Amino acid sequence: MAEIDRPARRVGRPKTTVLTRDLIAEAALRLLDESGAEGFTMARLAQALRVRPSALYNHVDGKEDVIAGVRELISDRIDVSAFATLPWDAAMLDWAHSYRLAFATHPPTIALLATLPLTGALRTMHMYDTVVQAMVRAGWPEPEVLPTIVAVESFILGSALDAIAPANMFDPSGAEDQVPSFASAYAARDRALGATTPADAAFEIGLTALLDGLRVRYERVRVAAG
Amino acid sequence: MAEIDRPARRVGRPKTTVLTRDLIAEAALRLLDESGAEGFTMARLAQALRVRPSALYNHVDGKEDVIAGVRELISDRIDVSAFATLPWDAAMLDWAHSYRLAFATHPPTIALLATLPLTGALRTMHMYDTVVQAMVRAGWPEPEVLPTIVAVESFILGSALDAIAPANMFDPSGAEDQVPSFASAYAARDRALGATTPADAAFEIGLTALLDGLRVRYERVRVAAG
Repeated sequence: MAEIDRPARRVGRPKTTVLTRDLIAEAALRLLDESGAEGFTMARLAQALRVRPSALYNHVDGKEDVIAGVRELISDRIDVSAFATLPWDAAMLDWAHSYRLAFATHPPTIALLATLPLTGALRTMHMYDTVVQAMVRAGWPEPEVLPTIVAVESFILGSALDAIAPANMFDPSGAEDQVPSFASAYAARDRALGATTPADAAFEIGLTALLDGLRVRYERVRVAAG
Repeated sequence: MAEIDRPARRVGRPKTTVLTRDLIAEAALRLLDESGAEGFTMARLAQALRVRPSALYNHVDGKEDVIAGVRELISDRIDVSAFATLPWDAAMLDWAHSYRLAFATHPPTIALLATLPLTGALRTMHMYDTVVQAMVRAGWPEPEVLPTIVAVESFILGSALDAIAPANMFDPSGAEDQVPSFASAYAARDRALGATTPADAAFEIGLTALLDGLRVRYERVRVAAG
């Protein structure tokens, strides 16, 4: 059993790596990055780890559990530490930057993890627990906390998709005569960008607006709550 | 040539359907919906239309051009009419609802179209031209217009992903003891939802906040511009 669980290594290297849930998740993340979400199967994962598929099932319950492990790996890289020290809005600003980067580094995970249940991703739930605690402590009404977090996440994940799009995604070359206002706005944006990428510029405008708007809501709900 | 271009129909049905760019795009959208973005090839598209691959190339330049056609089909369903009659922010509210629905109806297109160039999607460029015109007319500084539109789109596309996620995506069942604040916020949200879906609740909170924040920005940049 122990032999089956050990991924094959090249001759001459010590056979010290033993399968663990995290090792499987790391291999799964590499496979997702290389082949995309739709090419991801347990058989291919076993092949990448050079073990029999049955060996995987000593450590994970199946594909959904592997995906939960991938979600944990990614959320491990999202920094929630600011929620312990900063006001909720300043902490959310830091969190959003870290969150977008963690996902933009692994493009195929964005749509995949946005549409699958959290089940089994306990470390990810701990991240949410930290954010929820900070917002409740700040005085947000409890029923509003999760929808507000999900709204911010939707913006972050959409922005992560935008971050992996080509910088000239909106280039109207060849169609300038048919869409003159759009073409002019495209040129004006490019002149104003400087060293900033188009995706970063849009992210900063959106995140600032979203947090400004949430501060407006926060004041309103707190006044309503007395 | 004309024969090759005509998709095969069942015996007894009139052979009136001739390949067009839009017909190819419609078949491509069906194929994407059924098989996902990664399974999409020109060979499979030709097979779905029961024509030889070469017949497709009489109407489209290749896979990128087919995707441009798919983008046009989807943007055809996004209602921009409000930009002709309502203030920019009220129009953007309508546009965002219509935009999210158009994409949430075709899940595999969300990440695909968010990360590919607009090249060839002239009808989509016309949509942007309408939105840009309305924002410039309202007094938004031209270099800010496109990043602002992209920011709103990022929120919409992230929300479209959330709309296709299972309603119980965040269900912490079994982990309540480890993440009590998160579990309590989940329960509080579910009690408060009523007939609203979790995705709709998050979308409305986020869209309201984003537009409130953009109104703050709009006043600021107009004051700065004198």
